[in-house]
Amino acid sequence: MSRVTIADVASAAGVSKTAVSFAFNNPKRLGHATLERVLGVAEDLGYMPHPAARALSMRRSGTIGLLIPQRLSTVFANPFVSELIQGLGEQCEEHDLTLLLVPPLDGSLESAIRQASVDGFISLGLSPDDRALEVLDRLGIPTVLVDSDGSPAHPAINIDDEGGAEAAARHLLQLGHRQFAILVLPPARAQVNSTPTATRRLNGYRKALDSAGAPKPVTVVAGISVAAGARAFDSLPKVKDRPTGVLAMSDMAAIGVMSAAQASGLRIPEDLSVVGFDDVPASAWTNPPLTTVRQPIVEKGRLAARFLIQRMKGIKVESPAPLSTSLVVRNSTSRHIDSDLQIKGR
Amino acid sequence: MSRVTIADVASAAGVSKTAVSFAFNNPKRLGHATLERVLGVAEDLGYMPHPAARALSMRRSGTIGLLIPQRLSTVFANPFVSELIQGLGEQCEEHDLTLLLVPPLDGSLESAIRQASVDGFISLGLSPDDRALEVLDRLGIPTVLVDSDGSPAHPAINIDDEGGAEAAARHLLQLGHRQFAILVLPPARAQVNSTPTATRRLNGYRKALDSAGAPKPVTVVAGISVAAGARAFDSLPKVKDRPTGVLAMSDMAAIGVMSAAQASGLRIPEDLSVVGFDDVPASAWTNPPLTTVRQPIVEKGRLAARFLIQRMKGIKVESPAPLSTSLVVRNSTSRHIDSDLQIKGR
Repeated sequence: MSRVTIADVASAAGVSKTAVSFAFNNPKRLGHATLERVLGVAEDLGYMPHPAARALSMRRSGTIGLLIPQRLSTVFANPFVSELIQGLGEQCEEHDLTLLLVPPLDGSLESAIRQASVDGFISLGLSPDDRALEVLDRLGIPTVLVDSDGSPAHPAINIDDEGGAEAAARHLLQLGHRQFAILVLPPARAQVNSTPTATRRLNGYRKALDSAGAPKPVTVVAGISVAAGARAFDSLPKVKDRPTGVLAMSDMAAIGVMSAAQASGLRIPEDLSVVGFDDVPASAWTNPPLTTVRQPIVEKGRLAARFLIQRMKGIKVESPAPLSTSLVVRNSTSRHIDSDLQIKGR
Repeated sequence: MSRVTIADVASAAGVSKTAVSFAFNNPKRLGHATLERVLGVAEDLGYMPHPAARALSMRRSGTIGLLIPQRLSTVFANPFVSELIQGLGEQCEEHDLTLLLVPPLDGSLESAIRQASVDGFISLGLSPDDRALEVLDRLGIPTVLVDSDGSPAHPAINIDDEGGAEAAARHLLQLGHRQFAILVLPPARAQVNSTPTATRRLNGYRKALDSAGAPKPVTVVAGISVAAGARAFDSLPKVKDRPTGVLAMSDMAAIGVMSAAQASGLRIPEDLSVVGFDDVPASAWTNPPLTTVRQPIVEKGRLAARFLIQRMKGIKVESPAPLSTSLVVRNSTSRHIDSDLQIKGR
């Protein structure tokens, strides 16, 4: 069955297509009798204005876009995005908006942006040097950045990445750890630099380690999936300068490290302490439950959507202060026992 | 900065708006010199066709819709949807499509469907009596149903819900359990009946329990979140006819039951065996790891998108055979020890 068109209604009602369009989008332009006739015919035929036509004539699509610099399958392997969508979704529902997921099209985020019929974008983790930002600027579509650097054109919603990371590293230092591995977040896209988030967290880790005079940590770039965390564990030194504390930038990578370490015979936390980042719900259920840096992900989504909706209404908004993070200590971290002593004691 | 319009280009190039439209959507209708001039002016001005205008003239939006009968915040609290989107996303990327999340608008899924500018819908868990299906039929937009009943108009992608549930119940029966609680999935929407998925799983559980002559199980309707599972545990009988085996229809509810049971002092699995459904990744990390019915969620998403894309090309497709499920036995289930004997043995 094919869709009833505006032409079908116009012809059956004996009016122009413009008159049918007025009936739905600008009814005051029609006389009462004509309006009634057109709406009656439309109802009889089961006509509904095409959403794209409606979007054009109303100059709004009723949709906001979530701009994702990576593949959907990569991004949705991390519960972080689900949490963010819960926050975005609340605001979308309140304002009757739908949410369009916009990953790169044919490898190009710029093309995806141009083809997306949205009233505004929320962009996730774009580096300030990403060319996609230029396209957003040129199009003039209201945009709010999440986990990025704000600019005069676009406000950004961030958390206190550096403070959270510093607290995580200080926690392990206080437990007596000296040899660290840091699992760094990968760049959001191949051709760009580290994300602002990764840079800020690395600064926080380094600040704590440097001020405690700890040896230089091993750093490994690990994706945000459990499998990536497991691969990262495999690449860590196992004997000389073996790290006893792992600082991950995502809970998923931390869970991967724990699984791979346990599979190789290490005990968590006795042989290896692991700290995650995000506090996604699953981090409370792992075995052992994960010590992690909590960030308010749902709140971040809610705030980003709220700011975007204000911008869509033409209200000027500025980047708010970064949202607070806090360390949640569970059972994946414990006091470092010197391994020589441990062997003598057996 | 406001968007450069087609009228701006037409006026600067000295042509009609129709000519500008042809330049982008039907370039063969223009002479070579005119085409070059229009494209040159468009580039200088930074003009890009409005996605909605493009969607109308191309008669495609490059978007498929994921129709979700519940609130985004509810649905995304369950990792099931993330897994499904990983499968959908793979196919979207391959065919350069974006994915629009379409929950009820202002409480109405029917309105949401009418306003969504998509080339096709994938609909999640609609009951056959849902009025949204009528709207989909009337609009004639290609639709593929997931976790629903197929109809002549719409193919459906399903798993072997009944077989999976039967295997889960038989597993607990073989471990000596007789007193069961079943956590039933809630209806997808307030005004409709149980989803086909919930009905089929309940049939599977009952078939196994009936044929073993087990006493009538307690049934509780529980949402698909950890909090809902915890609430369900609280409403189970604690003394007389206390269930020793819980059959949940989602891993999230099962995890909620385990947490609440452990918080109340019960040991899992010694005092209470719990089986989930789905095998979302987190079920392997819980403490203890969850015995569950595995369904191929990513594959389900992939298949649904593949079927929809075929339908969008005008290819007729029929509902495939349900995908297989399998029981994954982990540590949340164990042999039922009669509690009197247990006390004597202490």
